[in-house]
Order: sequence, then C-alpha cells, then structure tokens
Amino acid sequence: MDRSVEFRKQKVQCLSKADLSRKGCVAEGVVDVMQVLNTWEQFFTTSSCVGRKLLIDGKASGNEVLKFEPLVLHMQCRQLQDAQLLHSVAVDSDFRNSGITVGKKGMTMLAVWSTLGLEVPLSNQGKLMVTEEYIDFLLNTAHQKMEENKKRTESFWFYNCLPRALERETITNSHPKIKEKNNPSCSPKKERNPAKAHGKRIPEENDKEMENDVDDD
Amino acid sequence: MDRSVEFRKQKVQCLSKADLSRKGCVAEGVVDVMQVLNTWEQFFTTSSCVGRKLLIDGKASGNEVLKFEPLVLHMQCRQLQDAQLLHSVAVDSDFRNSGITVGKKGMTMLAVWSTLGLEVPLSNQGKLMVTEEYIDFLLNTAHQKMEENKKRTESFWFYNCLPRALERETITNSHPKIKEKNNPSCSPKKERNPAKAHGKRIPEENDKEMENDVDDD
Repeated sequence: MDRSVEFRKQKVQCLSKADLSRKGCVAEGVVDVMQVLNTWEQFFTTSSCVGRKLLIDGKASGNEVLKFEPLVLHMQCRQLQDAQLLHSVAVDSDFRNSGITVGKKGMTMLAVWSTLGLEVPLSNQGKLMVTEEYIDFLLNTAHQKMEENKKRTESFWFYNCLPRALERETITNSHPKIKEKNNPSCSPKKERNPAKAHGKRIPEENDKEMENDVDDD
Repeated sequence: MDRSVEFRKQKVQCLSKADLSRKGCVAEGVVDVMQVLNTWEQFFTTSSCVGRKLLIDGKASGNEVLKFEPLVLHMQCRQLQDAQLLHSVAVDSDFRNSGITVGKKGMTMLAVWSTLGLEVPLSNQGKLMVTEEYIDFLLNTAHQKMEENKKRTESFWFYNCLPRALERETITNSHPKIKEKNNPSCSPKKERNPAKAHGKRIPEENDKEMENDVDDD
C-alpha cells in the first residue's frame, strides 16, 4: 500500500479509537491544540497530557516527592522528513526535550516535551523535610509553570510557528528555487545559543542570570 | 563520497578536536564509557556530561533553584538504522528521555538522557524557603542519583546491553534468517510497561508504590 494512503488509514483508525486514558477524555486545554495539529495531513496525535502535578509516595522508604510534568504530546508523522520539520519547530519554540523515535517498521513518532519541570523531595524516611508554607509556594510555582507551558504551546507553537513552517515547506516544495529564511519571530534564541540546535540539556530559566556548578561530592 | 567513508572521516576529525568544554577535559567517570562507545564503528560521541548539580540564581527575581542533571551523551550515528538500535537499547536501559535528531543534511544524532533529575526551588524573592538540613538532604539525594546513574550507565548499558544488541544485529545482518529474541536481562521493564516503547514521560522512582495526581488548580 502507498505510504501516504497507509498513513491516512492509520490516522483515521487512531483518532476514532476510544480514549483509554485515566480521565477517559482529552484534557481541557489540550483539545484545541490537538484539533489544530490533527488538521495537518502529515501528523496525528497518539497521546497527550496537558501537564500535571504528581505526588509520588515511596511507601517502602517513606520518601515523598512532588513532581510537576509539563505538556507532552506524542505525534505520529507520515515520514521522517515531517518529523524533522516538527522537531525543528519544537526545539526552536522551547520544547527542547523533544525527540524522534523510529520503530522497526519505519513508524516515526515525535515526543514533544518542554524543560519546564519540577522534582522536589518532600520527606526522608517518613520525616517531612519542608514547611507547609514551602509546599504552598511549590504548588504556586508549578501553577506558574503550567501557565507558561500553556502560553508557549498555544500562542507560539501551534498558532504561529508550526503553521508558518509548514506553509514555508509547502511553498518551497512547490517552487524548489525559493529558499526562504526562517522567520526570526519563531526562532527567538537560535542565534544567541547555537547549541540549542541539538535540542537537549541547556538549562533554562526565564530569569536566570548566573549558573554555578556545585561540587559533585 | 561513500556515506561510511564520510562518517569515518567525520569521526576522526571530531575525536581529534580540542575539548572546548568549561572543564577542558572529559569528566572522570564518563571517559571509560566514551572509550567503549567510540570503539563501535557506527557511532561517535560529540559531547558528554557525567551529571552535575547546578545552583541557578535568578538575581532579578531572587529565586534560587537547585538542579541535578544526570549523565547526557550526544552521539552521532552513521545512519538512521544505527540510531534506531541505539535509541531502543537506551530506552530499555532506563535512559528513557533519549531521542533522535535528524539534521537537514541527514546527520543523525542521538541524545541519551535518563529521567534521574531534581529541580528544587530554594528561595522566593530573596527569601530562603528551606532549612540547611533540607539542603544537605537534597545534596545527598543528588549524590545518590548520580551513583545510580553511573551504575546504570556502566554496568548495564555500555558493558552489557549495547554490546549484546550490536552483536545480535551483526549476526542477524550476516544471517538474515536468524531472528533472535531480545535478551530479557537487557529489557527489564519492557513487558511490564509497553508505553515505555515511546521513550517518554513515564514517571519513575525505584521505590515508587503509589502515584497521585494533585489538583491542578
């Protein structure tokens, strides 16, 4: 079967399946994003999480941990070239922990994930190590990260940069001689930090001004 | 130029370059790993960090954050097929945040990264929110994660699973009719958690027994 036809068939099958997540439906806040993404013929979303706070309770050790995990999307791509484009836009839009997975049968998936996380140990062998005031502060910090994450997702990536990149790609493919430059408003830090092109492990804080290595031992 | 020849040339050039990292040399603990990895003709390491603790000091807002980041390796791969194999072994070996990047010229890179992180806000607008005892506890927790990370890296992935997978691949390619099953000792959680195949976002704690979503608002 032709690759594009097979992909369209998979897309229809996947999007018509029952939602097997714990909530049983797509989380509020990610619905619009998914609807926009699924209008593009090159992709479809296979799973999503708008972001969440988790309390991980290590009963055996009495070590509780509070985690905040940002929005994650898994997107199946028609071909590697589509995944490359999507990955490039994701990294430029501060979803820097995104990465491609290629299955043995050539199924190409992009996991889209930002660096806006938190992972905070709260107790040690059953003893609470922090105050209630600190826990309130943490929850507030997680809430702010969630808002920032949502802002990046909606206004920057899905309604601006990705559609523009896909349009440029379409124009370039139709008229191979046209070599448009990236729109600078969609690549805000590219020139400042070329290491970002690899999409991994550049510590990030909006207000960061100093960064110190702490003695490892 | 033949792809394999070009790749070997790039490898030689890259590995003979001066080290431009802040430390000016490869960190102790990752040297052996890199030496082992660079013996395989399919890959070479382009950057590495054995893991680090960072104090991020937001001077503008007075918000200090302590981060622990685990080992990260960037590996250039000869072709996509090699990256697929490496990615699969990495995910099965609990380096679950690993992902492939494919450049426009077909340069294929794998970023290898585990989920063993910490990100803990310490102060709010200049006010320290935690005790010194808690900071000691955090540093100790980060140290334990570093040890766990090293253990996974050395004994599990580089000296066991990856070499075995590469040998299986060589045998299968030489004798296409041989379809060996995965070695169960190198895929410890594959059957328990099929979602892992996507390589992203499965919360993980050695001692986790319960996991609760916390109200997002």
